[in-house]
Amino acid sequence: MKKVKVYVTLRESVLDPQGSAVMGALHSMNYNEVKDVRIGKFLELQIEESDRDLDVLVKEMCEKLLTNTVIEDYRYDVEEAVTK
Amino acid sequence: MKKVKVYVTLRESVLDPQGSAVMGALHSMNYNEVKDVRIGKFLELQIEESDRDLDVLVKEMCEKLLTNTVIEDYRYDVEEAVTK
Repeated sequence: MKKVKVYVTLRESVLDPQGSAVMGALHSMNYNEVKDVRIGKFLELQIEESDRDLDVLVKEMCEKLLTNTVIEDYRYDVEEAVTK
Repeated sequence: MKKVKVYVTLRESVLDPQGSAVMGALHSMNYNEVKDVRIGKFLELQIEESDRDLDVLVKEMCEKLLTNTVIEDYRYDVEEAVTK
């Protein structure tokens, strides 16, 4: 079993209204040191080993369902899942 | 300027209906290797150096605004921001 962590971020060129709203809220709370906020998604997938290649699988899932590649970028890390 | 990456995840004990929905969708697309999906948030903050301690600042912001500590956990990394 592998644990795959996927980080999805908006592309640089895309406006992030949610991030701007959070930055506005932080400024109103006197955290004026904050100069930019971008908000993305973080997904943790538990994936069972199979005869399909893990990298191919993760890329397909990201491109078909998990991200919108027009406005988002993604990267991922693979870890050995810890059995509990 | 520092770049702070904050990862917000639901606590283990909290149900993740969004994650379950995504897992259902992946199964219907024949990605049956996926055994669990948890969805969290990923925030990138650009923070200017000030006389306040960065760790104290980030923890305060996370606990007061960015996360709901009743149901969410968070962790963060600090990097030197790259000037563009």
